[in-house]
Amino acid sequence: MSEAYDIVIVGAGPVGLMLAACIARMGNYKVKHIDIRPERTQIGRADGIQARSLDILRNMGLKRPIMAYDPGKIYEVAFWNSSQLCGAIHRTGTWRSYPDFIDTRYPFTTILHQGRIEKIFIEDLEKYGMYIDRPWTVSGFRNDSEDPVYPVLVDLAHVDGEQKTTVKTKYLFGADGARSFVREQLGVKMIYKDPTVYVWSVIDGVVRTDFPDIQGNNVVRVYVQLVLPTGGQDLRKLVTESKVQQAANEILSPYSIEWDRVDWHSTHQPKAGQGMNYGFLDALNFAWKFHLVESGFAKRSILTTYEEERQQMAQKLIDFDAKYAALFSTRPPSTNEVEDAVRFMDRDDAVETNEFVKTFKQSTEFTSGYGAEYSPNHLNWSSTHPAKSTFFSPLGIGLRPGRVFPPVTVTRVFDATVAHLEQEVPQNGSYRIYIFAGNPATTSRALSDFTANLQEDRSFFSSYRRDDITSVSYENRHNPHSLFFTFCIIFNTARARLEIDEVLPNILAQYRYHVYADDIPCHRTQNSRAAAHIKLGIDKDRGGVVVVRPDGYVGCSLALVEGAGTVEGINDYFAPITTKPLGKLNVA
Amino acid sequence: MSEAYDIVIVGAGPVGLMLAACIARMGNYKVKHIDIRPERTQIGRADGIQARSLDILRNMGLKRPIMAYDPGKIYEVAFWNSSQLCGAIHRTGTWRSYPDFIDTRYPFTTILHQGRIEKIFIEDLEKYGMYIDRPWTVSGFRNDSEDPVYPVLVDLAHVDGEQKTTVKTKYLFGADGARSFVREQLGVKMIYKDPTVYVWSVIDGVVRTDFPDIQGNNVVRVYVQLVLPTGGQDLRKLVTESKVQQAANEILSPYSIEWDRVDWHSTHQPKAGQGMNYGFLDALNFAWKFHLVESGFAKRSILTTYEEERQQMAQKLIDFDAKYAALFSTRPPSTNEVEDAVRFMDRDDAVETNEFVKTFKQSTEFTSGYGAEYSPNHLNWSSTHPAKSTFFSPLGIGLRPGRVFPPVTVTRVFDATVAHLEQEVPQNGSYRIYIFAGNPATTSRALSDFTANLQEDRSFFSSYRRDDITSVSYENRHNPHSLFFTFCIIFNTARARLEIDEVLPNILAQYRYHVYADDIPCHRTQNSRAAAHIKLGIDKDRGGVVVVRPDGYVGCSLALVEGAGTVEGINDYFAPITTKPLGKLNVA
Repeated sequence: MSEAYDIVIVGAGPVGLMLAACIARMGNYKVKHIDIRPERTQIGRADGIQARSLDILRNMGLKRPIMAYDPGKIYEVAFWNSSQLCGAIHRTGTWRSYPDFIDTRYPFTTILHQGRIEKIFIEDLEKYGMYIDRPWTVSGFRNDSEDPVYPVLVDLAHVDGEQKTTVKTKYLFGADGARSFVREQLGVKMIYKDPTVYVWSVIDGVVRTDFPDIQGNNVVRVYVQLVLPTGGQDLRKLVTESKVQQAANEILSPYSIEWDRVDWHSTHQPKAGQGMNYGFLDALNFAWKFHLVESGFAKRSILTTYEEERQQMAQKLIDFDAKYAALFSTRPPSTNEVEDAVRFMDRDDAVETNEFVKTFKQSTEFTSGYGAEYSPNHLNWSSTHPAKSTFFSPLGIGLRPGRVFPPVTVTRVFDATVAHLEQEVPQNGSYRIYIFAGNPATTSRALSDFTANLQEDRSFFSSYRRDDITSVSYENRHNPHSLFFTFCIIFNTARARLEIDEVLPNILAQYRYHVYADDIPCHRTQNSRAAAHIKLGIDKDRGGVVVVRPDGYVGCSLALVEGAGTVEGINDYFAPITTKPLGKLNVA
Repeated sequence: MSEAYDIVIVGAGPVGLMLAACIARMGNYKVKHIDIRPERTQIGRADGIQARSLDILRNMGLKRPIMAYDPGKIYEVAFWNSSQLCGAIHRTGTWRSYPDFIDTRYPFTTILHQGRIEKIFIEDLEKYGMYIDRPWTVSGFRNDSEDPVYPVLVDLAHVDGEQKTTVKTKYLFGADGARSFVREQLGVKMIYKDPTVYVWSVIDGVVRTDFPDIQGNNVVRVYVQLVLPTGGQDLRKLVTESKVQQAANEILSPYSIEWDRVDWHSTHQPKAGQGMNYGFLDALNFAWKFHLVESGFAKRSILTTYEEERQQMAQKLIDFDAKYAALFSTRPPSTNEVEDAVRFMDRDDAVETNEFVKTFKQSTEFTSGYGAEYSPNHLNWSSTHPAKSTFFSPLGIGLRPGRVFPPVTVTRVFDATVAHLEQEVPQNGSYRIYIFAGNPATTSRALSDFTANLQEDRSFFSSYRRDDITSVSYENRHNPHSLFFTFCIIFNTARARLEIDEVLPNILAQYRYHVYADDIPCHRTQNSRAAAHIKLGIDKDRGGVVVVRPDGYVGCSLALVEGAGTVEGINDYFAPITTKPLGKLNVA
């Protein structure tokens, strides 16, 4: 008898670890996690955590251990260029890593050694009783199990020893890197579109230099961009350490850089340095869909959206990457151009005609992680979605399905804490339904109608109540009724004026840890009252509802209306993916 | 031969530990630190860290280990009162712990068990090679050493064993609590002013209750205020645990509270719960004066300002405490009254005639720690200070000597980090001289004159240069010229427009880690440009200079002028306390 697992994860780099850490938070899944290396990363590799990744890590409670290392934070990029007069380089400008139009709480890239990132995940997983078997590798896998529940057989082998085993599993996740065995076995090829390719050669170490922008303790990472022919050659042989050092010195002339110590040297395709970060988003995207299917909420068909959404995103990155590298190889921007671009971009009505502005904007969106926008499908509402209610995407709404739910600051009524609303529901695989309840006097009827309709047959609420609903503890306060969803309710009123049991019907009052007052000023809305409502484009009296996917992307938004319309809209939104029929919509 | 120490610290509660941790950061001092207890606090005692204390702890790098415990944060206070109709209590209002007029980055009280606070300090001290000898006690001390450098002899004894020793020291610091042996030996009496006294009886434990404001895991601390006759009786015998529990139940009626477990029970005089926090400020106040004297910068006479400043502060607290307790014993405020009070207080021009508003405002200032204002003396400039330059306290300045230098957010030019200016110089015993340099085009001449005058004979700059000035490393970047002071330079311009070596003369350019752009919007100044200049009331073109004491309180402010005036003003400001004659002022 083979041991049976819900999932086998191959690879314990940041991506495989992120997947395991997500799954650990969602349910009691049986995970087999292997890694070919005898120990975690010791030197080099990835180190830049983009802002969107930091959001996600914070939502998992992992931002604090990251910050405990006092990591570097990159707030800006400096440009040095040679002048035509003397040939020597000089600083021609700086630009902020994340200009103002990137709406983030963390306008910087966090620099932490991959080994430390892995350590944080590994220690986190240990709290859930999850461990990595190493050094183990996959020697093969196939789809011929006799067990219909666990259709995949995976052969595992100890790297050094004689041990071998075959396990059966529902899912096999290959997070085994650029030379993935899993991918190779499945016949998924690397596709090179261009005859040449930009390559980043990277060296970590300690330098002696007179280059003015290197200060402090002189521990540096230097990237040198090279143009090479494509074709799958071993770049490590093609690009030697001394060649790269020489190239760096030529570029930095008249300054020089000497290496007292080299810790690591490697070469990769640039992808705006986004490998780990895109992998994080892959892992999270897969995790919640896996969870909704395995816990009986969603149909298996939602799994196809994983490849659809993530492949599209990867393709955009690859396409952009070539364009970006080419742009900077031809003409670097001046300070004025950068400033003009930022000013221009901050105007929502501006039509972008300048190629530089467009590319610049895209680059910051890519490197921050907020540029990601998932296209319309059953998860991201649009007019092509089966749900056709006129209440979707109400007039003025500032949120687009498929985009990140932005940072919004409110007061938590329960304990008057200043709360970051987008972080209030921890990463646990639940849909997050934000009821912006406007003025309590105006929405009182709408809220009671909403609550009444929640309890109708075939509502998403009635259909997916948890079994242990009568004994839900403080630990389960985010999900008093169901693990499929949770509510947050935000009133446009001062916290001191709010008495939860007076303004909310009993069902919603059970989300008392998730009731908020929209009474914190925000400089993006000129400190007006109701800053959160205004920022999101939600009517500050009549309110509105936003359904956010478990990964923090907007699924749909609706008006908050009297009568059955709002709940029916949500039922229809969920109907195409749920295992039970919801609402009046007939979905195949 | 007795062992010789710079200081003997008696007591390793939060106050003694704070002193040791401050001193560790200031110089290489030899410290003997003893505590009568065999181990650190395990249960009960202090737990509320006020915002001002958190500022100080952050400046020492200790906020992160505090937050690693995920401590409670008290953002608000709820009032429950019995109605005249039915006698049952109900919630009559909430109020924010720190209303808007308290200008802090941390508008909450941080709740962390005293044992954990001690642990954080102890682990910090270990990094400096400092340890606490325990259980040891002082058996006596006297002023008859034959060594003029170490005039105090202290007899120490092991609590359990036979070990005894006598050490000699320059200073003896008694942080040995409410029943201090050091104080008793010196004949310093406790003075009771009133015939009765308000007493807080406190119980820590786990409860079962239907009181709606207790939720979560039911681990609570309950204080019950009692009125007792004064006279130094043993309150522990007078106020038993069961009496307090009974009183709590009477107060909470019709709700009940039963104790599943009691961890700790004690009684103390309220002092707005500020014992530990005031002690922190005592320790810091003493530490930097001790350091300036012992490192040869300041005359011994500044030590008298320790008692003067801290005793005044303690007296204000004691006076206020009685008033505060009395106010709430007679009539608690309604929500409307609290809101009106806050609105009223936010108007700077409002004359406070309402006793409730006054007391309310004072209470939040006391409990936040920002209300502390040191009176004029040689450290806190006023028109009575020996320095008489007309450039002091320029028109419009929003800073008062003796008050905390407030939070200001700017961009650090060196790495474009969004920086909290008031935190930029770590706690190291140096004066912090903030040069707000306004518009670089306007102040260019003033800055070069300032720099030229720094280098004149008898300037504070020339007089206290460090010996190792030619070999100052990155680790000493805060103090390239002297341990007596450091500079921060803040320009009113966008970071991208600033090139340090172009806008600053060489001397000031050496503070390149402390050059800032005032380009971050702030909601308190309606997001105008130059928010930091405007908030502090500094001319946004012509700038100004603020000298901040090593403990973060404003010492003086001056106009930034062309010619010698600004540096001469600073020389005169320092002259009364320095060991060397400064400037033209003749100070005895």
